[in-house]
Order: sequence, then structure tokens, then C-alpha cells
Amino acid sequence: MIISSRDNPRVKRWAKLSEDGRFRRGEGRALLEGPHLVAALLQAGIKPVCVVVSEASDEERQLAAGSGAEVVEVSRAVMKAVCDAETPQGIAAEIEIPKPRLTKADSVFLEGIQDAGNVGAIIRTSAAFGIGSILLDSACADPWSPKVLRAGAGGHFALSIQVVPDLAKELAIFPGTLLCTVATGGRGLDAVGRAGRLGWVFGSEGRGLSAGALDEADLKITVPIAPGTESLNVAATAAVCLYSAFNRPAAGS
Amino acid sequence: MIISSRDNPRVKRWAKLSEDGRFRRGEGRALLEGPHLVAALLQAGIKPVCVVVSEASDEERQLAAGSGAEVVEVSRAVMKAVCDAETPQGIAAEIEIPKPRLTKADSVFLEGIQDAGNVGAIIRTSAAFGIGSILLDSACADPWSPKVLRAGAGGHFALSIQVVPDLAKELAIFPGTLLCTVATGGRGLDAVGRAGRLGWVFGSEGRGLSAGALDEADLKITVPIAPGTESLNVAATAAVCLYSAFNRPAAGS
Repeated sequence: MIISSRDNPRVKRWAKLSEDGRFRRGEGRALLEGPHLVAALLQAGIKPVCVVVSEASDEERQLAAGSGAEVVEVSRAVMKAVCDAETPQGIAAEIEIPKPRLTKADSVFLEGIQDAGNVGAIIRTSAAFGIGSILLDSACADPWSPKVLRAGAGGHFALSIQVVPDLAKELAIFPGTLLCTVATGGRGLDAVGRAGRLGWVFGSEGRGLSAGALDEADLKITVPIAPGTESLNVAATAAVCLYSAFNRPAAGS
Repeated sequence: MIISSRDNPRVKRWAKLSEDGRFRRGEGRALLEGPHLVAALLQAGIKPVCVVVSEASDEERQLAAGSGAEVVEVSRAVMKAVCDAETPQGIAAEIEIPKPRLTKADSVFLEGIQDAGNVGAIIRTSAAFGIGSILLDSACADPWSPKVLRAGAGGHFALSIQVVPDLAKELAIFPGTLLCTVATGGRGLDAVGRAGRLGWVFGSEGRGLSAGALDEADLKITVPIAPGTESLNVAATAAVCLYSAFNRPAAGS
């Protein structure tokens, strides 16, 4: 049976998971759109709650069948109603938002980064460069919103993600070297030591990091740029910093 | 006099400059939105054709007055009609699209990058890391569209930007070392020499670079990522590559 009514309670629920961050947090659920994200989820060994398909391609049908979860068929209009993308693909999945997990790998902390594209890009880049966990304050874009998921391109499932009520407190108890990035006046990336666990702190481009966050810094870091030019985008700053740490020679080498 | 009719021919023209890439190219004009871009334009010593203001702040009025150009006051509704931003700011400017200029600094080449946010981010990052010129093929997002301008954050006016009909031809005549970025199998960034002019070539994430572009490569470069993780976003790849070249020790040191 194909669900074709937007008034169907499950359809209303999926749409709300897509649109409403408070509802997502309350339910502990989110909605993934498109085969790329669903494939990344399954590759990470996570089973969705259910999979929604509509005029799915062969590849999308195989993903759905291989998910081990209930597969619900919906009309094109319903798929469009529950998805954020203007032209939704043939598959979506309702998931439980993964619980944060302990890691000894490097961490990333985000403060007040409201732009969903930037938060997603930083999640993707963090996953690519071996970061173990990302902690965000609640002023950041919701990491489980459709736009952040899209920009994250599956990175969400390669690391631990946690929205925390008090970021400064998390910084204070971080058991490693805290590197706060600042637009000007910090040390260059070669000042980052070669050993030990790193915690990178990135803030909003407009306001920079709060005094509370800066107080916790073991080191302030500035990515140097050409004289007279504008600042770097925060996602570009993160890419440069995280690559530089990922690529640093091991201690003693 | 305040223009308050959307049927005013100048209003229609500004809206078309905002919405229609072909019209922009035909006219050789574009529309900048917001005080940040207008300030970057003026800082680069470029005089706009005219400045449009609506309920402008003091800062925006000062920018308008300092532009040396005609200032046109419009109603809020007209400003909303001509701007791409959902909540337009109080100032916009019609500009002549700057002519490409000769440079001996490093260059960036973009092939088939359709995402406006990525093209804008790469322009911003290129400006920050001292790139002299960016050449894009016509499959890329229009660099003078509102979304690319917004993501470029003023970087547009720090370097030469040119949309070219035949990118492979431009690569063939580039007088320096051409570095084509590939998702896998290329050399690391330490393979980039310390002397001479560099040309970085970035392609779409989905398809990668064309065979024609790869044929021109002096070196294929891959930014290494953690095993088992997804690929990097093209703007993150560009940030890492351009920083690495900007920050490389001078030849002989």
C-alpha cells in the first residue's frame, strides 16, 4: 500500500522531524534524505527506524531492502511534503539520533555557528581528518537538520556528535590541548605540538569566540592570510587546521 | 524621491541583474547586496554605477555617500523585489563586472562546480591565500550571481575572475605548474615544488575533473583523508591546497 495522504500521522511526523528542531530533540529522531546519506548510515552499521521510498531507483530500492528496517512506500507528493530538498530523491530514512560516544581521538568544539552549511561542512571535514567527536553549543545550527545533514555528506556517522548546554564547561574538562582559533593575533599552525590529544575550538565569523571559551585556550591559533584581504570562512579555517593536525609528523619523527 | 513601484524600469533591471545570469553577461553588470560587499568594492577602489538604498542604517548611508556614485532611494518592497536575500539589507549597488586582469600570481581553475556556495567559498579562500586569478568554465555557478557574491564575502574584488568558453585551452597555455586535484591516487601536498607559478585545478565532486583537464596536469594532487571516511568537499580541498601553497617555505629555505 502506498501512503498518499499528507494527513497520515506518520507523514505528519516525518515532516515535523524534517522541519522542527525541538521536535527532533524531544523525539531523539531525525530524517535522512537521499541515497548518499542512507548508504553512509548503513555503512556505519546503523539500522534506521524505517525507510521511506517513492518512485525509487533500483539503487535506492536495494538500499531500502538492505537496511533491515520497515520500508514504507509513499506518493511523490508525500515525499515532497516530508523532505527539505526541493526535488527530493527516491529514499529517506527515519533514524534514532546516535548517542554520543566516548573517544580518545581529537575533538572539535563549535560555538555559535549558525550557518547550516558551515556546520555541515565542518562535520564532513572533521570526519575526513579523523576527528573523534564534535561538541556544539545550542546556538549552532542543529546538526540533525536536513541542511546540515546534506552538507555533512555522511560525516555525521563517522564521529560522535553532541549538542551541549554549556560549552565552556566541556572545554574546561577536556583532557588535552585546547586550540582556540582567532581571526588575528594567534600563533601559526606550526605552534601546534606533535603529541597528545587536540581540541579545536571554532566560533562564529561575526563575533568570534566568547571570552569564556578563549579563557580555556591552551593556545590561540590564527591561520595566516594575505595582507589586505578579507577573513577566511570558518569552514575553510577548520579545513586548514584539521588537515594540518591530521598531516603533522608523529611526535619524535 | 523614493522609487516605490516595481514596474519602474530601473527596478526591473536590477531584479533582472539579480536573477538572470544571461542578462548579467549581456550587460556586463551585476548587483551587489549588503554593506559588506559594497564596502569591499569601495576598498578595492572600484566605483559602482549606482547605489540603491532603503531604510539604510547610518553605516549604509555613509557607504552610499562615500561611493561617489548616484544614490537611488527605494521603498522596502522594491528592495525586497530586487534582492536575492530573503531579508535584504539597506544597501545594494549596481556594478560593472570587473574586466579580467593580467597577474603573475598563482591561478585557480574551476571546472563544472555548480554549487554557488562552493564557488563563492573558493573565491573567498583564493583571495585570502593570495591567488591572482580564477578562471571558471561556463558549467560552474555564475561568479556574479547573488549567492556566489555572498559566499565570496568580498574576495571577488581582490583577484581577477574570468568565465572562459574553453577551460582546457586555458590550462594548455598556463605558464606554470598545473596541479590537478583528484579524489584518490594523486601525490600528497608535499610533492608541490617550492618555486614557480602554480595553477590549481578543482572539479566537481561528483564527476571529478574531465580527461581533457587531467591531460594538462603537471602533477595530480590528492589531499589525504582518514581511511574509510567520505571524500572532502571541494571548497575544503581548495582551502587545504591553497593554504599549503601560501604557507610553503620559499625556495631555497
